[in-house]
Order: sequence, then C-alpha cells, then structure tokens
Amino acid sequence: MADKVLVFSRFAKSMLARFGEKFELLETGGKPANEVFTADQLGEVRALMTMGAQPLGRETFDLLPSLGAVVCYGTGYDGVDLKAAAERGLVIGNSPAANASAVADLAMTLLLALMRRVIPADAYLRSGGWSGAKPSPLLKPPRGMTGAKVGVYGMGEIGRKIAARVAAFETEVAYHSRSRHDVPYRYVGDLGELVDWCDVLLIAVRAGPDTQRIIDASMLKRLGRDGVLINISRGSVIDQPALVAALADGTIAGAGLDVFEQEPYAPDALSELPNVVLTPHIGGHTLDAHVAMQDCVIANLSAFFAGRELPYKVE
Amino acid sequence: MADKVLVFSRFAKSMLARFGEKFELLETGGKPANEVFTADQLGEVRALMTMGAQPLGRETFDLLPSLGAVVCYGTGYDGVDLKAAAERGLVIGNSPAANASAVADLAMTLLLALMRRVIPADAYLRSGGWSGAKPSPLLKPPRGMTGAKVGVYGMGEIGRKIAARVAAFETEVAYHSRSRHDVPYRYVGDLGELVDWCDVLLIAVRAGPDTQRIIDASMLKRLGRDGVLINISRGSVIDQPALVAALADGTIAGAGLDVFEQEPYAPDALSELPNVVLTPHIGGHTLDAHVAMQDCVIANLSAFFAGRELPYKVE
Repeated sequence: MADKVLVFSRFAKSMLARFGEKFELLETGGKPANEVFTADQLGEVRALMTMGAQPLGRETFDLLPSLGAVVCYGTGYDGVDLKAAAERGLVIGNSPAANASAVADLAMTLLLALMRRVIPADAYLRSGGWSGAKPSPLLKPPRGMTGAKVGVYGMGEIGRKIAARVAAFETEVAYHSRSRHDVPYRYVGDLGELVDWCDVLLIAVRAGPDTQRIIDASMLKRLGRDGVLINISRGSVIDQPALVAALADGTIAGAGLDVFEQEPYAPDALSELPNVVLTPHIGGHTLDAHVAMQDCVIANLSAFFAGRELPYKVE
Repeated sequence: MADKVLVFSRFAKSMLARFGEKFELLETGGKPANEVFTADQLGEVRALMTMGAQPLGRETFDLLPSLGAVVCYGTGYDGVDLKAAAERGLVIGNSPAANASAVADLAMTLLLALMRRVIPADAYLRSGGWSGAKPSPLLKPPRGMTGAKVGVYGMGEIGRKIAARVAAFETEVAYHSRSRHDVPYRYVGDLGELVDWCDVLLIAVRAGPDTQRIIDASMLKRLGRDGVLINISRGSVIDQPALVAALADGTIAGAGLDVFEQEPYAPDALSELPNVVLTPHIGGHTLDAHVAMQDCVIANLSAFFAGRELPYKVE
C-alpha cells in the first residue's frame, strides 16, 4: 500500500505529477475532504500537504484520525492552527529558505518597477504616447535609488537576501527584527523608529499573531508622503484598508504588493490606484524555487513515512 | 552682456529655469535655429547645449559663426558630428557618469520586470483574473535570477554599476569590452562567445560607428530561445527589425528596451509583443541624475565662458 497524502490546497498539475510518483495523492481540489472522500479513505491518510497560508485546523484534523504530519509547501505555516496540531501530536514541516532568493528578487522587482514607473511607461509607449508627444506620466523625475534610506523589517533568510540586493543599489540599509543579527546593516530596536527614518520600507517579517496589522494607519503616517512600502511577506501584516486610504490621499507615495489580506485578491479601491504595483503572490514562483520547495516536501514526506525526523521541521 | 547659449534640444522647463539663472538661453524649441532667431542673434552665440543622441553637425554649425563649445546633457555624444566639430575647433563637453547609477538601476528594473512578468501580473490582478480564477499568464514558472549567466557588453561606468547590481542577485557575471578592465568579473575577448554563454545579455556599450547594429540576427540566434536582451545604451547598437523577428518567432525569449532605433519610438510590431518591456528612454530620468547632469552642464559652460578648460570634456 502506497503512502497516502491528502493534498489540501490546489497545486499545479506538473507539481503533483512529481509527488504522485512517490506517494498516493488524495486531491480535494480545494473542497472539504469529506465531500470528496469517504471516511474509510480519509482514515488511511497519514500525511497532509498544504500551502502555509491556507487556514487549516481542527475541522480538517477531525476528519483524519491517522494524521501524523502536516507538510507545508513554502516557507510559511501561518495558516496552520499550531495549537490544535500540537494537541494531536502532529509534526509540521515547511520548505525553509527554498524560495528565499526568488522572493527577495520579487521584492526588488516590485520596488524598482514602482520607483521607475515601468507599468505606465510601457503603456505610454505601446499606446503611441511618446511618438505622439502626449503628456507623459513620467514627466516629473522620480527620486532614484541612489542614497535612498531602506528599512528592512524582518531579518530571516528572505530579509537578509533583500538587504544584500538593495545595498548593491548604493542605498543605506537598516533593519528591525525581534533581535539583532550578525549582518552588516544598522539595527533599529524599534519598528516605528525604522519607519520614521526610511524612504523605503520592505516587509519580510514572518506573519503571526504578533505581527497582525502591525503596519497600521499610524505607521503609514510615519512612513510619510515620500515613503514607499513593499510587502512580499503576508497580507495580514498590513492594515489593508488603512493602506488603501494612505495611498489614495498621499499619506505615502506608493506600494508594491505581492500579498493581500484576502487571497486570491479581488479588485477593489486598491486596484484603481496608479501608485501601486500588484502581483498575485508569485514571490516563490520561479522554476528554481519550485524545484527546491518540492525537494523539501518530498524529503519531509519520505522521512515521515520512514519513521524518521523531518529534515525541514517547524519547531 | 550675459553669456549666450543656444538650446538645441528640448529640455524640461524646470531645468531651463536653472540654466537661465546663469546664462542667456536662446531656445529653438526643436526647430532649425535660423527659423527662430536672426543671423545677428545667432552670431553672438558662443555655446550650444544639446542632448547627445540628437543629430548635430555642419548645417547648424554654419549658422553659428562664433560657436566655440558644444555641451551635451548626459553621457552620450553620438549625435554630434565630431569631425565637423574638430574642423571648427569646437570643444565638446558631456556629463560623464552623472547618470550611471540611474541608468544601471533601470537596466535592472527592465530585467526583473521582464523575468518576473510584472506587467501581465499587475493587469491580471487589476482585471479580476486572480479572484476569478481565470487562466493565469503566469502559470508556467519563469526561470529565476539565481544562477543565471549574465553577460554585460561594455564595462564603462554604467556597465560596472550594472555588473555590481546583478551580481547581488546570485548570478554569474562575465563581460566583453574592447579591453580587459580591473573588475571582479570574467572577461570574454569575443562578443559572440559572451553571447553564446549567457542567458541574459545587458548592453551597456558606448554607441558609435563600430557598434552600429552589432547585435544582429546572427547574434540573436546565438543568444538563443531562453535568452533575454536588455538595452539601455542606444537603439543603434541593435538591428531592431531583426530583434522584432527574433522575439516574434521565439529565437530569443524576451527583451527590455529603454532605447530604440528611432526616438521617440512609434508603436509597431514590437509594441504588439507580450515578451517585451518598453520604456521611453528614461534611464537617466531620476531627480538625482538630473541634478548631477545639470551640475556638469553648468560647470562646463561656466568654465568655457571663463576661458578655462572644460571639466567634463570629450577627448
């Protein structure tokens, strides 16, 4: 009997094909597991594979009496009810750092695209604005990266990689995190002080109850009207209605967002704004990152079914 | 009598205001100088200010019998007929390196926006594609920057700054230029060899007769179907019809272009392609870069009128 894995989130077919070679997959297609499978089928499931941001707790655990492991695809596991998992003695795995480079690259992509106004620039050319000498959306020169004060919030693997990249653009980098790290950037012990100081705030902190909506209206005011905000972490870190208001009334200058309070994000006031760049949670969406994350998932599941410790375990 | 400067190209009003404080400006508004000014007025002009890419030669020089200096705004001076200028004993000034950081930043912006497909991603979100679970233009993961082989063609100030930035993205960097430089990147003595090797070709070479259409159909074929091309130098370096064909038939994967054979660029087959990012020659268009370039122009003009050597002189 092949080892049975409940596929709790939706994954690309090509990805599931690779897992399917090693495990027997029970795909829910995003529906509650008991609508798709019988109690007998679910009774044989010992491991579950999920996207870390997707809510997962008692309701699902109750359907899976033999469940022993929850394996998250990606770095995050903020959707998993850790308390409920601990009560049942479940082990939790993730794919730490496997996508860090890709996510850091996307943070830089959002920042540069926003600062240099690539989206309106490209539209201006394609529509004939430049050749027709129409009023340019780029008339007023933007401030460049040179000398910009960049604050990185969070100094895990992703924060570190963001800092290394942004420092190469002749910027001044400082960071805030719960504790000081051995990195060549100035540590600021208070998040608000970092926000007061910086022109660019890059959010790379791990999402959790302690960071819930920590970037609120008052923080945005402190970021200031020349300030820009980039978030590739989780939407929950920002008070999104406050952000939309701050972008609309000029409290801050702009934002680049790969993550949202509700995903998949549905167009609202945010998508009407010209001073934002929006991407559909594609931070870890590169070929390299996917292969690395898949490797972590396979290693975790293989170890679990072999009765060994998970190599990429959430403590 | 104030020192008279003929303003040969069009410049932003805010910029001319700054120059106008120091010099008497004769603005042609882009028209031939003798259509706007009398021979007497032009006879008093001793210096001319221009954009380096704009054609400038005998025809204009003949209208300006007292002309002694041509001062270019920006790094380039490829539009100036150097032979005709030398015959008249004109000195030529430019703004070397003043915009190098801004141009290098834009090269990275184009590269990242292209690789991570920011323009279709943003459109997908704003149109409700993500929330509506419509087929995503991002379905197939792109190759990331990690481990990419990046070839930089040209190792002047801009090429150096591009190399420093792109190396921070965990890439492998090599370069080609006429001669080896004291830089920590691998030198490739033959441009074709560099193109064969690299996944990403960044063009930062100075434009001139020797680089005219040097990136032609055969070079594009050597770049290959996974290859991408970024140009922030001059459009003349690339055979643009060959590039459009190569992009359309999959000979190469994509391109990010800030410069074109004809500027201002008018929409054609290029602007119909999904695998390009286009910007209207905004490489040096940041606040910092403009101030630095203005400083060079003012220093050059002030020195010339004071009878001193130009501090930023084209040799």
